[in-house]
Amino acid sequence: MTTIANLANHQVRLAQRPVGTPGRECWSFTTEPVAEPAEGGVLVKTLALSLDPAMRGWMNEGKSYIPPVGIGEVMRAGGIGRVVASKNPQFAVGDTVSAGLGVQEYCLIAGDQVKRAGLFKIDLRAGSMTQWLNVLGMPGMTGYFGLMDVGMPKPGETVVVSGAAGAVGQTVGQLARIKGCRVVGIAGGRAKCDWVVNELGFDACIDYKAGNVKAALKEHAPKGVDIYFDNVGGEILDDVLARIGRGARIIICGAISQYNNTTPVQGPKNYLSLLVNRARMEGIVVFDYADRYHLAVAEMAGYLKDGRMKSKEDIVEGLDNFPEALLKLFSGANFGKLVLKVADA
Amino acid sequence: MTTIANLANHQVRLAQRPVGTPGRECWSFTTEPVAEPAEGGVLVKTLALSLDPAMRGWMNEGKSYIPPVGIGEVMRAGGIGRVVASKNPQFAVGDTVSAGLGVQEYCLIAGDQVKRAGLFKIDLRAGSMTQWLNVLGMPGMTGYFGLMDVGMPKPGETVVVSGAAGAVGQTVGQLARIKGCRVVGIAGGRAKCDWVVNELGFDACIDYKAGNVKAALKEHAPKGVDIYFDNVGGEILDDVLARIGRGARIIICGAISQYNNTTPVQGPKNYLSLLVNRARMEGIVVFDYADRYHLAVAEMAGYLKDGRMKSKEDIVEGLDNFPEALLKLFSGANFGKLVLKVADA
Repeated sequence: MTTIANLANHQVRLAQRPVGTPGRECWSFTTEPVAEPAEGGVLVKTLALSLDPAMRGWMNEGKSYIPPVGIGEVMRAGGIGRVVASKNPQFAVGDTVSAGLGVQEYCLIAGDQVKRAGLFKIDLRAGSMTQWLNVLGMPGMTGYFGLMDVGMPKPGETVVVSGAAGAVGQTVGQLARIKGCRVVGIAGGRAKCDWVVNELGFDACIDYKAGNVKAALKEHAPKGVDIYFDNVGGEILDDVLARIGRGARIIICGAISQYNNTTPVQGPKNYLSLLVNRARMEGIVVFDYADRYHLAVAEMAGYLKDGRMKSKEDIVEGLDNFPEALLKLFSGANFGKLVLKVADA
Repeated sequence: MTTIANLANHQVRLAQRPVGTPGRECWSFTTEPVAEPAEGGVLVKTLALSLDPAMRGWMNEGKSYIPPVGIGEVMRAGGIGRVVASKNPQFAVGDTVSAGLGVQEYCLIAGDQVKRAGLFKIDLRAGSMTQWLNVLGMPGMTGYFGLMDVGMPKPGETVVVSGAAGAVGQTVGQLARIKGCRVVGIAGGRAKCDWVVNELGFDACIDYKAGNVKAALKEHAPKGVDIYFDNVGGEILDDVLARIGRGARIIICGAISQYNNTTPVQGPKNYLSLLVNRARMEGIVVFDYADRYHLAVAEMAGYLKDGRMKSKEDIVEGLDNFPEALLKLFSGANFGKLVLKVADA
């Protein structure tokens, strides 16, 4: 029988802050013994981790919506795991849970950190483990509240979403369709675009790698863009700004095209289109909506069940592959929500 | 006795579209006979014209919130005038009126154009003629609805306004003070800054010509900027973005620093601060609020009367001086709302 005292916890820690694209030199690999939880605490075995563009921001020094990961700290990551030891009456050994586990095989969550880690039991009848990292997880919540609370879609409006095949993008596009909008995705490569249209039911998808996004927007959003959900920034943001309609809402969720810049971020030179069109550009941070996650999860689980919403995950195996897996996000090599599978069960 | 048939109408027309700063070569000077109004029409003698940064935009080709002024057309301008002939029962000879008069000595407004020209009688007991071009006119309405409807100020919040000594800026700052906000202006030069603080009662004013706006913002808005009313764009917009607080609202009213650019507009490279701070950047066009102008005018006239609001106009005389007068806006040489006085009475 495996006892906790015999377990080794392999971890990935931030070794240095990256300049540009974060290579393997930014990480250190450590092993620690696993400890029993104290009163109120829980020990979770990591099964799968969510890899997200936001991680790149957490690696930088400086003020943001959450503090940066410190040098030498285990890299921050949300994930799904299984409770292997518990001294908390709310969690039993064997429960499948979601939490901020970090890039490591085991996460010991102290009693007073349970809330801060966002620890909660997940129901695998609502969605699969990887769907709980995707449409039912942080990306799904980001898409849901960004679209609904900031975008405020009305039936018949045209919604454009970049990173359309990514975790947030697939949620936003499908949800906007369900809400009666015309949906145009922007993604990299024919395969992603075809999938977004044929499998997810977007009305159109623009392949930005094929060039001339502005002309394609004119074709696919002839009456102008009412809502733009921006995950990428850069040139594409400018192209959409040139095509927004009166009273448009632009949700600033991320700017993956800019995260590895070693030069200053490219500001949207077409921002005065906001003036001409009485339009709005607004940022969203998903954590602000934590008290309403359960409502969004219930709604989205319904769509997964009745088939109106689908999901796709791109699964990389092995904790040691974390550094290279993360880079797939920035090259656009991932197809679907990027997940790092750490253990089978 | 002067009859209308004897009058000559001197006009300034757009001769060519400017590249960069619009010099005298962009204008042509014409003289036309003045005609009697037909049924429903009104003939207005121009007394004073409003010179505004927006005029630079109207000179450019291309889609905006209103069509550009055509080559050969009388330059568009709002102004105050006196009715000298009327075949419209709503306007009598001698009435003082506001309307889109154009840069010319006489404006013949046909019956079916009365509404489109925005022709209305002004009450000189509510404010002086030049105040009707300033706080009670288009700049005042822009400041009022931009601040109140887009900015939604709450008592105790910190409001920053650029172009603080200009027509829109003086309205915004004084109104924000009246609404219980802390107000920090940004203006060019010590004289303007001193006036804004000592005469208008702003809490502070930053002289951008003295450099380091960002450090000055840190000093004068230590808790962060809740509302930024942007008239200038460029570096100052970026400096403020770096200092906004959670849930901030940025009103995009103009970008005078960029209007004479021959290179692309400088996009705000700090726009991701909108994300970090869950903040919003939104454009305003004053014409959208036309059906509520009378309410704002009534409120502001009250503030002028009880002394809580002051105004300053910079008056240049003579229609022929229009080209040079306009340039004062872009060099910042004007001190207060820039008005072109065309006739005495």
